Amino acid sequence: MEVYLDHAATTWCYESVRDMVIKTMMEDYGNPSSMHRKGVVAEAYVKKARGAVARQLKVQDKEILFTSGGTESNNLALMGAAWANRRQGRRILYSAMEHAAVKEPMKRLEEQGFETVEIPVDGQGVVSLAALEGALTPETILVSVMHVNNEVGSVQPIEEIGTLVHEKVPGALFHVDAIQALGKYHIYPGRMGIDLLCASGHKIHGPKGVGFLYIRGQTKVQPQILGGGQQDGMRSGTDNVPGIAGLGAAVEEVYRDLDKKVAHMYQIKGLLTDGLKGLDGEKAVIHGMPVLQGAPHIVNVSFPGIRSEVMLHALEDRGIYVSAGSACSTHKRQKNSPLDAMGVDKGQRESAVRFSFCEETTEEEIRYCLQALKELIPILKKYARR
Amino acid sequence: MEVYLDHAATTWCYESVRDMVIKTMMEDYGNPSSMHRKGVVAEAYVKKARGAVARQLKVQDKEILFTSGGTESNNLALMGAAWANRRQGRRILYSAMEHAAVKEPMKRLEEQGFETVEIPVDGQGVVSLAALEGALTPETILVSVMHVNNEVGSVQPIEEIGTLVHEKVPGALFHVDAIQALGKYHIYPGRMGIDLLCASGHKIHGPKGVGFLYIRGQTKVQPQILGGGQQDGMRSGTDNVPGIAGLGAAVEEVYRDLDKKVAHMYQIKGLLTDGLKGLDGEKAVIHGMPVLQGAPHIVNVSFPGIRSEVMLHALEDRGIYVSAGSACSTHKRQKNSPLDAMGVDKGQRESAVRFSFCEETTEEEIRYCLQALKELIPILKKYARR
Repeated sequence: MEVYLDHAATTWCYESVRDMVIKTMMEDYGNPSSMHRKGVVAEAYVKKARGAVARQLKVQDKEILFTSGGTESNNLALMGAAWANRRQGRRILYSAMEHAAVKEPMKRLEEQGFETVEIPVDGQGVVSLAALEGALTPETILVSVMHVNNEVGSVQPIEEIGTLVHEKVPGALFHVDAIQALGKYHIYPGRMGIDLLCASGHKIHGPKGVGFLYIRGQTKVQPQILGGGQQDGMRSGTDNVPGIAGLGAAVEEVYRDLDKKVAHMYQIKGLLTDGLKGLDGEKAVIHGMPVLQGAPHIVNVSFPGIRSEVMLHALEDRGIYVSAGSACSTHKRQKNSPLDAMGVDKGQRESAVRFSFCEETTEEEIRYCLQALKELIPILKKYARR
Repeated sequence: MEVYLDHAATTWCYESVRDMVIKTMMEDYGNPSSMHRKGVVAEAYVKKARGAVARQLKVQDKEILFTSGGTESNNLALMGAAWANRRQGRRILYSAMEHAAVKEPMKRLEEQGFETVEIPVDGQGVVSLAALEGALTPETILVSVMHVNNEVGSVQPIEEIGTLVHEKVPGALFHVDAIQALGKYHIYPGRMGIDLLCASGHKIHGPKGVGFLYIRGQTKVQPQILGGGQQDGMRSGTDNVPGIAGLGAAVEEVYRDLDKKVAHMYQIKGLLTDGLKGLDGEKAVIHGMPVLQGAPHIVNVSFPGIRSEVMLHALEDRGIYVSAGSACSTHKRQKNSPLDAMGVDKGQRESAVRFSFCEETTEEEIRYCLQALKELIPILKKYARR
């Protein structure tokens, strides 16, 4: 049996996405910048996708721009907003739960003369509103908070943070990395006070190599990739029509019957966490928020005494694919990980494993996984002691 | 009949590319950064593609990094090299034939305190080696010259330029935008003295949204998109496996029997240019280098008295797709176009049309196009006079 429980790392594509990609690679393959019909047809796919994303977020079409993925979106939002608004101030805040695609640009901005400040989180991985409020000085131009954390699934009170930021410093921009939230939550930047929001295709059964960035109305952002002036001058390079069209199709499909999908994922999540708690005297430690408060698709758990990698490969031998940390940081372990920020001790950090689902994950798959864990844990513990 | 003669704007995908993309979207959909088998399998596709590109260029695998396309590659090469080598000097040279993906980064670098100098070209669009030699001062850190121009198909003496740059200023880097040259020419950075070379998938029947950058050995380049540290830290973001695998497949297929393909394209080009010359008393003016010296796949021609757009749409009505200028600059006409740099007068610039082929373009298609031109020109000229 093959059980893929690493959907937070990446997902397979929907068939609707595949069909869209093939159509635009083989038949409607034009360059949207071309003036002839082949170009116009290609442009229509981009417009349609832009409309689908905008409709879902309840924003205007022109507020959506397409990029090569979540990392580029984050970089463009942060570097672009910082540089475009630097006359107003140089102070930037970000939460301790942010992904490397936010933390690394922060380091670059620090080198470039900006002041970047990390806002701490509590033991469940939730941003301290008191600390945020204290850090919001008039020089603050930008605040970056991840909607759903990719490693532990903790969910931030985005609307509350948006209100706080705009009340305290009216000129500051609020950026939200919603890569793990898209397709799991309804996200409405207008109501939530979000000025910049980024997302990715391949986390929602869309294509890899494509993402989007929402930029509210007149928000100033300096483009980072320059050239032919595509995407309204905000992101040059021939539009990746198959990727964009595929992303549009994925957004439409993932949000169809979302509540039902989310309810199913919570059921799966409950089945797994209940099962983990029931593993006889093995004391699996589940990190993050309580099951129904955290994201529906992520469970992060430590099996004390068993290193993450050992567990990962043992499960792999049973055809079960999980993650140690996030896929994005496995090759060079983050020193400054979300678990670290949450105050989780070294032993637990080094034995943490992430299980992540999609709406197609079945109860049978979870039961198979629990059975494997039940068999593996005693063996691996014995092995670890030697 | 539908005749697509806009292959320099973009191409349809090879079937081998489509198959590769589907396989990696639906089945081998893992994240190459994942430690389990799904990740390892995905990583193998990236390695294979990297190997295919490196083998073709006769460079080392680790010297190839994948990006979201030609524009990002150019931006990374130029901004990255400029910032990484700024202690050595601030002077950057680029040819007047460069694409906006080079010229726009030049403007940004100028704002950032670099000195950028445009090197003129002759009437055929070839860089003046004398002017280049004169401009190469010891402070020069970077020289950017396009291998094949996308609008007129003029071909630069890359090897000669490489030799000149390295002889005159041993520390300077030579960057080549080879987006229109890949798949038409054998390109060997080692022999040609190229330090940085960029290319794109969708110009060679590969996917849109993917490209590569060759970086010679120890050349210092500052990464521009920061995050999880993929692509050896040079370009973060989940690897676009379908795009990369598709690009690898396209490179392999396009170079198979290249000489035969190129000979066929020259035959097509000759058929078109001979036909254009033979259009009774209509004085079509062909721009750029002599037929066999210019690129095999591009013909740029003015029909004096008929505006480019008018001709483009008239041909479109016959099912023939061509370009006015480059697709990348049609929405906002470049003031500083290659034709301008070549000294072509305004009247001819405004009536220039680009025909571009691929190896599958047939003689029948060209004859159909010539017949359409023969019928259209007298009508359009009459119309233009009114």
